[in-house]
Amino acid sequence: MSDTKTALVISAHSADFVWRAGGAIALHQAKGYEVTVVCLSYGERGESAKLWKQDGMTLDKVKVARREEAENAAAALGVNDIRFFDVGDYPLDLGRETQDRMVDVIREVQPSFMMSHSKWDPYNTDHMNTTQFALECRMIAQAWGHNPGQKVLGAPQLYLFEPHQTEQMEWKPSVFLDITDVWDKKWAAIQCMQGQEHLWNFYKNVAENRANHFRRNSGGQAGGRAAQYAEGFQTIFPTTVDELT
Amino acid sequence: MSDTKTALVISAHSADFVWRAGGAIALHQAKGYEVTVVCLSYGERGESAKLWKQDGMTLDKVKVARREEAENAAAALGVNDIRFFDVGDYPLDLGRETQDRMVDVIREVQPSFMMSHSKWDPYNTDHMNTTQFALECRMIAQAWGHNPGQKVLGAPQLYLFEPHQTEQMEWKPSVFLDITDVWDKKWAAIQCMQGQEHLWNFYKNVAENRANHFRRNSGGQAGGRAAQYAEGFQTIFPTTVDELT
Amino acid sequence: MSDTKTALVISAHSADFVWRAGGAIALHQAKGYEVTVVCLSYGERGESAKLWKQDGMTLDKVKVARREEAENAAAALGVNDIRFFDVGDYPLDLGRETQDRMVDVIREVQPSFMMSHSKWDPYNTDHMNTTQFALECRMIAQAWGHNPGQKVLGAPQLYLFEPHQTEQMEWKPSVFLDITDVWDKKWAAIQCMQGQEHLWNFYKNVAENRANHFRRNSGGQAGGRAAQYAEGFQTIFPTTVDELT
Amino acid sequence: MSDTKTALVISAHSADFVWRAGGAIALHQAKGYEVTVVCLSYGERGESAKLWKQDGMTLDKVKVARREEAENAAAALGVNDIRFFDVGDYPLDLGRETQDRMVDVIREVQPSFMMSHSKWDPYNTDHMNTTQFALECRMIAQAWGHNPGQKVLGAPQLYLFEPHQTEQMEWKPSVFLDITDVWDKKWAAIQCMQGQEHLWNFYKNVAENRANHFRRNSGGQAGGRAAQYAEGFQTIFPTTVDELT
Amino acid sequence: MSDTKTALVISAHSADFVWRAGGAIALHQAKGYEVTVVCLSYGERGESAKLWKQDGMTLDKVKVARREEAENAAAALGVNDIRFFDVGDYPLDLGRETQDRMVDVIREVQPSFMMSHSKWDPYNTDHMNTTQFALECRMIAQAWGHNPGQKVLGAPQLYLFEPHQTEQMEWKPSVFLDITDVWDKKWAAIQCMQGQEHLWNFYKNVAENRANHFRRNSGGQAGGRAAQYAEGFQTIFPTTVDELT
Amino acid sequence: MSDTKTALVISAHSADFVWRAGGAIALHQAKGYEVTVVCLSYGERGESAKLWKQDGMTLDKVKVARREEAENAAAALGVNDIRFFDVGDYPLDLGRETQDRMVDVIREVQPSFMMSHSKWDPYNTDHMNTTQFALECRMIAQAWGHNPGQKVLGAPQLYLFEPHQTEQMEWKPSVFLDITDVWDKKWAAIQCMQGQEHLWNFYKNVAENRANHFRRNSGGQAGGRAAQYAEGFQTIFPTTVDELT
Repeated sequence: MSDTKTALVISAHSADFVWRAGGAIALHQAKGYEVTVVCLSYGERGESAKLWKQDGMTLDKVKVARREEAENAAAALGVNDIRFFDVGDYPLDLGRETQDRMVDVIREVQPSFMMSHSKWDPYNTDHMNTTQFALECRMIAQAWGHNPGQKVLGAPQLYLFEPHQTEQMEWKPSVFLDITDVWDKKWAAIQCMQGQEHLWNFYKNVAENRANHFRRNSGGQAGGRAAQYAEGFQTIFPTTVDELT
Repeated sequence: MSDTKTALVISAHSADFVWRAGGAIALHQAKGYEVTVVCLSYGERGESAKLWKQDGMTLDKVKVARREEAENAAAALGVNDIRFFDVGDYPLDLGRETQDRMVDVIREVQPSFMMSHSKWDPYNTDHMNTTQFALECRMIAQAWGHNPGQKVLGAPQLYLFEPHQTEQMEWKPSVFLDITDVWDKKWAAIQCMQGQEHLWNFYKNVAENRANHFRRNSGGQAGGRAAQYAEGFQTIFPTTVDELT
Repeated sequence: MSDTKTALVISAHSADFVWRAGGAIALHQAKGYEVTVVCLSYGERGESAKLWKQDGMTLDKVKVARREEAENAAAALGVNDIRFFDVGDYPLDLGRETQDRMVDVIREVQPSFMMSHSKWDPYNTDHMNTTQFALECRMIAQAWGHNPGQKVLGAPQLYLFEPHQTEQMEWKPSVFLDITDVWDKKWAAIQCMQGQEHLWNFYKNVAENRANHFRRNSGGQAGGRAAQYAEGFQTIFPTTVDELT
Repeated sequence: MSDTKTALVISAHSADFVWRAGGAIALHQAKGYEVTVVCLSYGERGESAKLWKQDGMTLDKVKVARREEAENAAAALGVNDIRFFDVGDYPLDLGRETQDRMVDVIREVQPSFMMSHSKWDPYNTDHMNTTQFALECRMIAQAWGHNPGQKVLGAPQLYLFEPHQTEQMEWKPSVFLDITDVWDKKWAAIQCMQGQEHLWNFYKNVAENRANHFRRNSGGQAGGRAAQYAEGFQTIFPTTVDELT
Repeated sequence: MSDTKTALVISAHSADFVWRAGGAIALHQAKGYEVTVVCLSYGERGESAKLWKQDGMTLDKVKVARREEAENAAAALGVNDIRFFDVGDYPLDLGRETQDRMVDVIREVQPSFMMSHSKWDPYNTDHMNTTQFALECRMIAQAWGHNPGQKVLGAPQLYLFEPHQTEQMEWKPSVFLDITDVWDKKWAAIQCMQGQEHLWNFYKNVAENRANHFRRNSGGQAGGRAAQYAEGFQTIFPTTVDELT
Repeated sequence: MSDTKTALVISAHSADFVWRAGGAIALHQAKGYEVTVVCLSYGERGESAKLWKQDGMTLDKVKVARREEAENAAAALGVNDIRFFDVGDYPLDLGRETQDRMVDVIREVQPSFMMSHSKWDPYNTDHMNTTQFALECRMIAQAWGHNPGQKVLGAPQLYLFEPHQTEQMEWKPSVFLDITDVWDKKWAAIQCMQGQEHLWNFYKNVAENRANHFRRNSGGQAGGRAAQYAEGFQTIFPTTVDELT
């Protein structure tokens, strides 16, 4: 095992990681992390309305188009390792087989931290089911008796993505990350999402406003970091520290 | 203003800072912080049962005894600056005058972080009223128009102490601090609390068990820091970071 | 009493009503409502940092400047009735006298609905104290024995403003209002806030993104109203209806 | 597709729609809606105690009796379209096949609004599983890639029924509906439930007391609608409006 | 001090104890308890609409009428000790003086258990302020240094009354009390409330439906106590027991 | 059916019942109850790290060792009836077959009360899935139509175990049980858990500190039971009583 730090992002559909964690991904890649992105599905049925409105569209064509968008976005973010589980969407098939595949990836990557969706999402049950699934797989990867001999997982944090309507999803950010330095990469990745152009400006607004929250929480009117773009995440587990700040 | 980092602990009664934050205080003093402790009261009426059972006890005698205990405990923790507001207890007088005094201290100290009690405490309304008061004073200290010309406060975190019955107080820790290196100091400070010997072992148990939580959250069965004593705190405000961990 | 519908907005500081309810105010004025805005304070101490950084600034000068801004903003929104209670800020004086004044206004206005701040705000206790105060005054205005002979208040809804960091304030919107038709007025009112230019873009972003939520909740990808700007509010009381929608 | 408005009620067991939404159903039928009721099961195992106490009872006999009661109740409410999925109860089989059937119904009906159970029910997991199932099916019905060519679903509200012990189910009503005009129909439907006569009076009391809440929230002592019977519902999604009320 | 068990009910207005705890009071009186009822106010301004609609009504006349009703109701329930603090209503004056009076009563009564209102009530802030006040006074009564020499209070449970709209008040019952044997007394007490006849049936319905909950939670369809009338309460503090049941 | 009282403990892994309910089990056995313990799994994969670190370890060897520990612990607690479902762990197989087995046990035992895990556990999804499963099986066991002719279940309380990190699991105790008299048995049972010696002291601390909570809630500084060891549980269902205490 090398000394490279790693992270793992579990995305229900192939575009989620871009809107919700593109900045965090690009930033950590820039810092020398290897970030692995797993897309459980392409969002081929539920998040490709624009494609389906075209004549002669088929499920396979949608998947190909969505995969290409996701690969381009990943490249824009500097990601070297993106994997597509292709388990279907609306709903996802998160049965025992998918679970085993996911645990294998977690064991292989040995992430310093993990990312996934919010705990509750009445608009999109794929999202909340993915979070439950991520917790389940994290637990299995920690088990000494699961594939004995493999290196077991430690206790990585699980960061929850900012969902589309935060308050409805009972999501509350506990950390803001300054992504100003990599905003150009996130913006480029966002623009790879040709099928969802109606969301580009939405997530630009989110990034600008989260930067306002970053400034306010890092000093407020008395100073603080002049972040221009930020992302927010909710942590599931408490942190362990040597010094308070 | 010097480069010394500072912190401010607001304690409803004179012993609270020992049980609930003694480790954090000693640790940060050892790291070069100047930690200021404000005891709003001596807990002279409500938390001095053992003294009141003695013959000829008076309110003043209780205050003197409690103050001495608190000063000894502060010394054991390495604290150089402990202040007693003496606003009465059960209930505290948290009116405009006390508020002004507190804001002055906050402005003077310019803490990197603040500490106080839990948001809710049906057993002890002094505790939850102190937290509300701390938030109110923090807000005033941030106001440019409050005593213009003084240095305004930035946006320090408010860490909430672990209360006596956490679940009843709706308190949930978001950070565990390893206090192993200063445990001897906290234990010495605890032993200064002659009037509450029945609580010594209780808070030793808490520190041991929070260390277990520290270990579990820093790596679990796969490793993690071998902390022997820890304290937990709940944060009110989100953090602002450059890198996730 | 005329047939004109009325509404009452209770704003802790003189700018709050603009950012948080400017669209609702302009829209209802345009629909023929008379909206009364009460500013409990000018935000003279806590929300006028830019003014205080000027040489020779005094409390009175700040108040005059802030009042002028608020009056201009109100005019831009079409408001005919804005009142300044001038009870100080950071903290507000919400004692019995202020309460009596507020109840008189509620009785006079007889609002169809009321608006105020979120229930919880650890950054700004003025905000949450104002909400508690609004509920208290609403209750008194309903009392047949309070100034007998006056017309008592019915049961108007209390809409809670969108706060600056919604998730930290435990605020969850239950209604989105399409303010596209009056956005120009809200934008003009926002621009009256010369002292807080750093927030202009923030609240434009909010309005755009809430419009996205409006669209999603009014039909989603299958249709829905093409709102361009919207505001969100949380209701305190359940509604009473003749038909579900 | 006609201009008739439609609604869809998803009932875990065959009697639930009567107690919990009978008034809403009758009222909307009277207003010209076509309300479709889907009973996932007959409640044959778990909610037919009285029948099972009879000699010679079998599962099929229970189903027949329960179906007849439900059909009679539906007729009393003016319902023209009631469907029985017969997927078993205690527990319900809510697997992929049931899901597909439900999505087909949703697509066919294209409801203006949907109704189902509370989010949490420790007494009856069939109820809360049905709600999760309803959200999942609603999401699939919105997917452009699910059975492409069919008309996709918009964004109908999901109203949650009043459960038997509201506070234990973490249910909070956000809307009260005046059902006075159709109370005779609901009462007739309730009386079709021969096997659960012990609940008749219970739900009559509920309707009377919810009417009290209707009156209080529509004006209180200062006026308000003189509703005699009402039903309460909790909404999952925020509303989108043109005017506040 | 005698061996008689005691209880203390703190009622914001003079009728609250009847609707919300009349059964518990009568039942415990019948079991040999001495129950003390403190009415902080007569509800003279806020809960006497019917009286205020009469010609020539004055505050004093309302108080006299309300006091008589409350005394009659208390007598019907078998109460020997009802006290009127007369601190005004809408809002209550719960300042230091009222606090001292209340603590004196608590110390005198030494209740086995206490009762008061719900923690939250947006319709009626007097109610929730009373609960906060009750917790504060309970804490002071426990302080050895408050009036040293008096017998200090133990740790009595605080039971929260069922409020008028439970779900809006965030109230959840943790205990149901069978009041069938004393229902005739509660009904008689209710009928003493001549000014609020519109609520008689409402609280009869509540008592019947809570009895249904009593039956369900004591055995359900498999048996259980055949209670006909019950009251529900929420406990604030955990219980300490020798055996689970 | 005899007159012996019974209880049923559902433990996800074979050691859970010892740490979390060992005192309650020993105490009720001592009081004449027959307590049945069902271990769904041996915790063979996820909770046997120490064993897996030994050379030549296999899944079967782990199961044998864990079973022996659990049987010894059960014997130390006086339990006569412990059953191992052996459905695998990390994750548990809680499908229809396991459900049927569990319902059979519930019907056979007819417990006065049941025990299981907390409602939420992000560290260990086996735990929270077990609780959901316990509620589901309890419901089925209450159904008259499930295996007609068998005695149906009444409405036993479900007590939730204290989890490892209470606050993270959203667990709040509503009852403390004095286990001083059987502490020696619990301690002996704990010492049977050779593979988890690192937790012995942790749960001793928990028992000591919960005894402090027992004392405080049973009288506080004014008296109270001098419990030395206690366990805490959260109840799911409200209680039904004849007298408040």
